[in-house]
Amino acid sequence: MTITSEKKASESESNLDDVLPVSPELVAEIIHALEIEDKNQIIFLLEPLHSADVADVFEQLNGYHRKALTSFIGSDMEPEVLSELDDRALDHVITEMDDEDVARAITQMESDDAVHVLEDMDAEDQRKIIDALSDEDRIVVEEGLSFPEDSAGRLLQRTLVSVPGRWTVGAVIDYFRTDEDLPDEFHLVFIVDPMHHPIGTAALNKIVRSDSDRLISDIMDEDPTIVPVDMDQEEVAYLFRQYDLTSMGVVDDSGRLIGVITVDDVVDVIEEEAEEDLMRMAGVHETDITESILEASKNRVIWLIVNLATAILASMVIAAFDATIEQMVALAVLMPIVASMGGNAGTQTMTVTVRAIATRDLTSSNVKRIVFKEFSIALVNGVIIAIIIGGLSWVWFDSMPLGGVMATAMIINMVMAGLAGILIPIALDKMDIDPALASSIFVTTITDVVGFFSFLWLASVVLL
Amino acid sequence: MTITSEKKASESESNLDDVLPVSPELVAEIIHALEIEDKNQIIFLLEPLHSADVADVFEQLNGYHRKALTSFIGSDMEPEVLSELDDRALDHVITEMDDEDVARAITQMESDDAVHVLEDMDAEDQRKIIDALSDEDRIVVEEGLSFPEDSAGRLLQRTLVSVPGRWTVGAVIDYFRTDEDLPDEFHLVFIVDPMHHPIGTAALNKIVRSDSDRLISDIMDEDPTIVPVDMDQEEVAYLFRQYDLTSMGVVDDSGRLIGVITVDDVVDVIEEEAEEDLMRMAGVHETDITESILEASKNRVIWLIVNLATAILASMVIAAFDATIEQMVALAVLMPIVASMGGNAGTQTMTVTVRAIATRDLTSSNVKRIVFKEFSIALVNGVIIAIIIGGLSWVWFDSMPLGGVMATAMIINMVMAGLAGILIPIALDKMDIDPALASSIFVTTITDVVGFFSFLWLASVVLL
Repeated sequence: MTITSEKKASESESNLDDVLPVSPELVAEIIHALEIEDKNQIIFLLEPLHSADVADVFEQLNGYHRKALTSFIGSDMEPEVLSELDDRALDHVITEMDDEDVARAITQMESDDAVHVLEDMDAEDQRKIIDALSDEDRIVVEEGLSFPEDSAGRLLQRTLVSVPGRWTVGAVIDYFRTDEDLPDEFHLVFIVDPMHHPIGTAALNKIVRSDSDRLISDIMDEDPTIVPVDMDQEEVAYLFRQYDLTSMGVVDDSGRLIGVITVDDVVDVIEEEAEEDLMRMAGVHETDITESILEASKNRVIWLIVNLATAILASMVIAAFDATIEQMVALAVLMPIVASMGGNAGTQTMTVTVRAIATRDLTSSNVKRIVFKEFSIALVNGVIIAIIIGGLSWVWFDSMPLGGVMATAMIINMVMAGLAGILIPIALDKMDIDPALASSIFVTTITDVVGFFSFLWLASVVLL
Repeated sequence: MTITSEKKASESESNLDDVLPVSPELVAEIIHALEIEDKNQIIFLLEPLHSADVADVFEQLNGYHRKALTSFIGSDMEPEVLSELDDRALDHVITEMDDEDVARAITQMESDDAVHVLEDMDAEDQRKIIDALSDEDRIVVEEGLSFPEDSAGRLLQRTLVSVPGRWTVGAVIDYFRTDEDLPDEFHLVFIVDPMHHPIGTAALNKIVRSDSDRLISDIMDEDPTIVPVDMDQEEVAYLFRQYDLTSMGVVDDSGRLIGVITVDDVVDVIEEEAEEDLMRMAGVHETDITESILEASKNRVIWLIVNLATAILASMVIAAFDATIEQMVALAVLMPIVASMGGNAGTQTMTVTVRAIATRDLTSSNVKRIVFKEFSIALVNGVIIAIIIGGLSWVWFDSMPLGGVMATAMIINMVMAGLAGILIPIALDKMDIDPALASSIFVTTITDVVGFFSFLWLASVVLL
C-alpha cells in the first residue's frame, strides 16, 4: 500500500483517515449488504482488505451484524482475522462458527496467535476446539496455555531456526534453501549446543555477508538476550525497548531454547501496558471499551463505591464544622475550591510518579531528589494559587481574614497533595500493590479531608 | 545477556530488577567514585554496561554528578549513549562536552539518532555542532531537521538496501557480499525503478531461500507499505501496529525512496503516544519527569489556574443558594458528594473515550452505539450509587425527603457526567482539538456545576 499525501497542505493531520481502507462508508455498505443478504457483495467488499482490517470491520459492527457476517464468510475467513479481533468480537464470531472451522483456523496460525485466540474463551468452548485439533497442534497449544497469563510463554512462537555451532555458514545457507519446516519469516538464527541450550545468535544479514566456509559459531553474537519462559510480559517489553531488540530467545526451566519472541508481538504489549496505567488510574477496566453494558457497569461501579466511601469521609469532616458553617455560609461556598485544587495538584504529581515508576525512571537512587522536586513544585504552585484565590476571596466577601484563611488552607492542601501524590504511589509500589490502580483513592481522600479540615478549622479559629 | 529466573517461586514479579545492570548500589558506587575522583573505578564500573544502561546511569544522577561524569568519560563515550539520554540529561552532558566530541559522536550515529540528539538543543549549540560536521553529514542532518517534528522524516534512517528489479537473486546476494556501504543491520531489500521509486520489497529470508537465477522482481512483495516523509509519527505507529510491520519505506514529495523506518524506532513512539494521553489528561507536560522544578511548576500551574476558574464557577452556583444552605447546613455537608461522584463517573467515561479515539476504536460507524452504551452505564451506576447514598443520607440526617433529593441529584449528575464524558471528547476531536488535553476541564466543570445546582435547587424546592 502506498500512502500518498496529496492533501497534506490543507489537512495533513487527518490524511491517514482518508486512505485507511475501513471507512465509515465501507462499514455502511457492508451493513447494507448484510441486511439484503447479498453474499457476493460482502465478499467483493472484504476481499481486498488485509486481515487486520477485516477484524476492524467486525469490531465496528454490533453483535447482530457480527454474527450475520460470520455466518456469511465463516469458513472462508483468513485465520489471522481471528487473532486480530478484540475479546468480545472474537467471542461473537467464534460462537457463530463451527468448531471444526475454528480448529482448522487455529491449526494455520502461529502458536502465539493460537494461544491468544484460545486463552479468553470459556473452558467448555476451549475444550471442544482443542479436542478438534491434531495431536501435534494440541500439544503445542496446551503447553502455550500452561504458561502463566501475561508471561513470555504466551508471546512466543515455537517455530524458529536453530543450528549447531560447528556448521559452516555455507551449510546454514543450504539448510535455509532445502528445509521445508522453517518459519515463513525470520531474521535471526539461534546457535545451540547438543542439549539445545542457546549459545549465540546470528542475524541473517550477517550470515549472507560472511564467507561460506567460516564456522557459524565464529560470527555469532555470543551474548544475545535470552529470557525465561515465565518472565512477565511487561519485563519482556522493557528489555526490547531498553536494548532496541528485534527478537529474543526464550528458554524453559532447564535452559533449553523453546521459542522466540519478535518485536511485533511486543508492540501490542507496550501499548497495552501504558494504556493499562491510564485506565486503572481512572478506575476502568483495561478492556472496558469492548465490554458489554453490564460488564462495564459492574467493573466501574466498584470503583465508584470506593470513591463514595472517601467522599462520605470528607463529608464527615464538614459535618464536624456544621456550627461554623451555619455562622458563616461563605465557608460553604469556598470550601470546595480548596478540595478541588488539592485534587488537581495531587493528580498531576501522582500521574508523573506512576509513569516514572512504570518506566523505571524513579528508583531508589533518585527518589530523594524527586520527592524534593515534587515538594518544591507543590510549594511554588501552592503559593501562586493561594495568592490568586486569597485575593479573590477577600474581594468577593469583602473580608481580608477570610482571604487569609483561604490562602493558608490552599498552601497547606496543595503541599499535602504534592507529597501524597508522590509518596503514596512509591509506598504502594514497595508493598507490591499496583500504584496505578490504588493511588488515586488515597490521594483524593487525603486532599479532600485535608482540604476541608484545614480550611474549616482555620476559619473556626481565626474568623469566629 | 541470559536472564535467569532462579528465584521465580518467591518473587517472580521483581526478578528483572535483580538482574538489570543499573542497580541503586551501582549508582551509589559511581557517585562515590565521582566524589573521590577515581577515574579508573568509574571506567571499570561503566565498561560492562550497554550504552542504554550508561544513559540510565546519567539519568539517575543529579546535574552536578552528570557533569562530573561527563568530564571524566566525555571523549570515550559511546555515541549511542547520547541518543538514549532524556532531554534534560542530554542538555547537561552536551554542555559539558567539547563541540568536536559531540560532532564526532553524531557522525557515528544513524541519521535518525543524530537528528534526535540535535532537535531539542537550543539554536546556537545546534549551529556550532552542525558546523563541526563534515559536508556530507551536515547535509543529511540538516535535511533531517527540515522535516516537521514528530513526522516520519524524523524517524527514518537514510541507509537502506535498494536494488533494480532486473537483478537476479544471485546478483543481489553478491551485492550483499561485496558492497561496503550497506547498513550494519537490515532485514529487507527495496526494489526500485530507475527514478528510485520503490516498486516492491523482498525480505532477506525470502531472498536466501530463492533460486539464484530468479529475478528479484519475481519474488518481491509488490504492495509494501510506503509512506510520505511528512506523515505524523502517530499515524506511522498506527500502520506498524495494524499491519504488524517490521519496516516501512519512506518517500519524498516526488515519490523517490529516501529512507526506511524500522519497528524498533517506532516502539518508543508507541509508548510515548499512550503516555502523552495519560499525562495530558492530568494536566502535566509529557516531559515533566525530566524538567527542572521551575519548568515543571510553570507548565503545571497553567492547568491549575484553568481548573481554579472552573472551581470558582462551581462556587458561584453554591453562592446562589447561600440562603438555602443557611437554613439547612446538612446541604453543605452532602453537596460535595454529588459533585465528587459525578467527577469520578465522568472521568471513567472520558478516559475510555479518549483512548478509543486514539486507537481508532471509536469511529462514526459505531459512535451511536457507544454513546448509547455510555448513557446506559451511567444510568445503571447512577441508580446504584443513588440508592446507597440516598439511604445513607436519610439515616444520617433522619430525613426521607433529604435522602430523596440526594438520590435524585445523584442520578441527574451521573447521567450528565456520562454524557459529558463521551460527547465532549468526540466534539473536541471533531474540532481538531486534542481530546486528551482539553476534555477534563469541560467534564469537571459540567459535573461540578450540574452536581451543585441540581442538588441545591432540588433541595430549595422540595425541602424548604
